[in-house]
Amino acid sequence: MKQEGEVLVVACRPMAGMSPVSVNSLTQRPFPTPSPFTFSVASTRWSSRPSIHYSNLVLRFLALIFSFVSALSLAASSPKKKGQLPSSFTGYSELMYCFIVYTLVFVYSALQLFKGVCDMEHRGMIISDLISDYLSFILDQLLGYLLISSCSVAILDAQQISKTALLWKVMSFAAFLVTATCTILSGYKLCKRIIW
Amino acid sequence: MKQEGEVLVVACRPMAGMSPVSVNSLTQRPFPTPSPFTFSVASTRWSSRPSIHYSNLVLRFLALIFSFVSALSLAASSPKKKGQLPSSFTGYSELMYCFIVYTLVFVYSALQLFKGVCDMEHRGMIISDLISDYLSFILDQLLGYLLISSCSVAILDAQQISKTALLWKVMSFAAFLVTATCTILSGYKLCKRIIW
Repeated sequence: MKQEGEVLVVACRPMAGMSPVSVNSLTQRPFPTPSPFTFSVASTRWSSRPSIHYSNLVLRFLALIFSFVSALSLAASSPKKKGQLPSSFTGYSELMYCFIVYTLVFVYSALQLFKGVCDMEHRGMIISDLISDYLSFILDQLLGYLLISSCSVAILDAQQISKTALLWKVMSFAAFLVTATCTILSGYKLCKRIIW
Repeated sequence: MKQEGEVLVVACRPMAGMSPVSVNSLTQRPFPTPSPFTFSVASTRWSSRPSIHYSNLVLRFLALIFSFVSALSLAASSPKKKGQLPSSFTGYSELMYCFIVYTLVFVYSALQLFKGVCDMEHRGMIISDLISDYLSFILDQLLGYLLISSCSVAILDAQQISKTALLWKVMSFAAFLVTATCTILSGYKLCKRIIW
């Protein structure tokens, strides 16, 4: 409910199995306020939660795939000119940093995906929702910044990679975009929790 | 009354001669819990808005200072060994990238600070609140990622800087932390707008 100018706006979610007309007649009775609980608890449980939950799962799956392919294209790389340059990516500290970050993103995405699938059956089975929201927000932020940092550092050395440079660039950018979107989504979820 | 997606929005005019306090007491009647309405309506208007507004101003001011000192310490740098290496930071493309990002952060922080001070007198005078919130969120995200990216790239070349390397590192880190906090704050403000 917010007061815009002189108009009082009340937002409520219609309860399950209740037509909007009956909700309307109910809400208008004492004062047009629905119970705060129908809004907060109901909304997070049935109507809005699944869409956010499924988008989150899809994003985590994409992050998993993209980080895996990025790490693979980095590991399978071979330098353009053989000789003085290190033959493997382990010779470049920047590429190693990048590889470690991809591994972290991969493991984190796998854990999030596992948790998301488990939550479909029993909500809050592995970790409580409150801790999960805070932890996801912090780790997403951290991994997003780590990803952009490592890619920026590695891009100069990645020029040495002959065959998989383009694939690596595309996959890294995709992984970063997905992680940044995850960050926004987990921030939104946390905000919703804090504001309510 | 209109139905937006699955959210029912009821708009009504507050009754004449009814103070916000009496409205509040009405909503609190059925459920004796701290009503979200007291939190939202009251807080956005009187209690929490100024604190967010002032924290935002302080953060923008800090970002302005830190980005200015970072850019200055980069511009005033001189290489350790004279000779083959470029004498100025303009010779290093990575340091130039970093310098440009600092300049962007400085200009953006100055504009945000100007807008914040103007809003104290007349809210939404320069730009409407809705556009401002969306724009701040996007630009904060963008500058946060640009800042960490440019600092990561420049840190290797910054080893060449003799006198101001430590100052640059500390100030860059501070500028990044402040920008990241601004990003979280503007995300929170936008979420509050979307959820309400």
